[in-house]
Amino acid sequence: MKVGTVVGAIWATRKAPCLQGQTFLVVESCGQEIVAADQVGAGTGDRVLLATGTVASRYCMDAPVDAAVVAIVDGQREKKPG
Amino acid sequence: MKVGTVVGAIWATRKAPCLQGQTFLVVESCGQEIVAADQVGAGTGDRVLLATGTVASRYCMDAPVDAAVVAIVDGQREKKPG
Amino acid sequence: MKVGTVVGAIWATRKAPCLQGQTFLVVESCGQEIVAADQVGAGTGDRVLLATGTVASRYCMDAPVDAAVVAIVDGQREKKPG
Amino acid sequence: MKVGTVVGAIWATRKAPCLQGQTFLVVESCGQEIVAADQVGAGTGDRVLLATGTVASRYCMDAPVDAAVVAIVDGQREKKPG
Amino acid sequence: MKVGTVVGAIWATRKAPCLQGQTFLVVESCGQEIVAADQVGAGTGDRVLLATGTVASRYCMDAPVDAAVVAIVDGQREKKPG
Repeated sequence: MKVGTVVGAIWATRKAPCLQGQTFLVVESCGQEIVAADQVGAGTGDRVLLATGTVASRYCMDAPVDAAVVAIVDGQREKKPG
Repeated sequence: MKVGTVVGAIWATRKAPCLQGQTFLVVESCGQEIVAADQVGAGTGDRVLLATGTVASRYCMDAPVDAAVVAIVDGQREKKPG
Repeated sequence: MKVGTVVGAIWATRKAPCLQGQTFLVVESCGQEIVAADQVGAGTGDRVLLATGTVASRYCMDAPVDAAVVAIVDGQREKKPG
Repeated sequence: MKVGTVVGAIWATRKAPCLQGQTFLVVESCGQEIVAADQVGAGTGDRVLLATGTVASRYCMDAPVDAAVVAIVDGQREKKPG
Repeated sequence: MKVGTVVGAIWATRKAPCLQGQTFLVVESCGQEIVAADQVGAGTGDRVLLATGTVASRYCMDAPVDAAVVAIVDGQREKKPG
């Protein structure tokens, strides 16, 4: 999974009917922008954990999405130098 | 998911029978060209949202496609500088 | 999906039994060589459309392949400059 | 699969309910940081084997994760120069 | 699929129970090292064909692996210059 930062959102009126009600966040991760469905309630500036692929679709009730926010990251413990 | 811009279309007469009737758009995203099945009715110049992988195939009635246009993007809200 | 050009073929005698009878083409796409199962009858020099991942396997009767030629591209319409 | 080194861990209180109880390690592989669910009991500094995609989800009882530690690498035999 | 060359092997005692008995080869493909389960009997120096993703897992009796050697390449025919 990737960790990224929410930098915005997109909206669309013409879309697959099964996408109705989904929120789409723009997440920047490693200099790349990924659009992800959000069911956790993340907001701009949050650091989030993304799951991608079929896994994301299954998490979003089989909607045609290939990326989803699955957690909001609270903290990260780094390796202590030996 | 990726956001891209429709820059053209391709056609093919010799193809998997189950691809009959599918429209294939050429979408440019991050300097890369991706061919995606379209069932939303996007046209050249439209900014679209792409789903990739098995998810795209399922959305296109299990056709052998690994990318699909699932929405036409109306707008994008950017993060306001703090 | 990716568009690429068939540049050769590979053969193998020691392989997964379920690959018996599959033709493997070498397709160049964006400077990268991908080996893809072919059931459309593409030949060297043909521009082809590739599907990748589980989708390709399903198209090839669940054989352990992750790329398949699903169409031979006849033409591409480019975006007219505004 | 990829081999990488565990360099830390992340935690999250707001997350998909089905992620409850999962441990998330940060694994560095080829200069890239991947977050992976761990059920093998790896610790910081361990060299681990990662499986990605739907495979990882299935291994983690269908949780919405797309990377999992599936083994701790004990050793690697390199090719002897001819 | 990718063609690569077997350059070594890895071993692990602490691992997912369902990985018991699997052989893991290190395959170099396009300057990248991929670890793949082997059921074809490939050895160091062999050129092999890799299938990746869920396809590889299914080929390995649903073990949590995302890459598998599915064939040992005997030869490759290149495109004749026109």
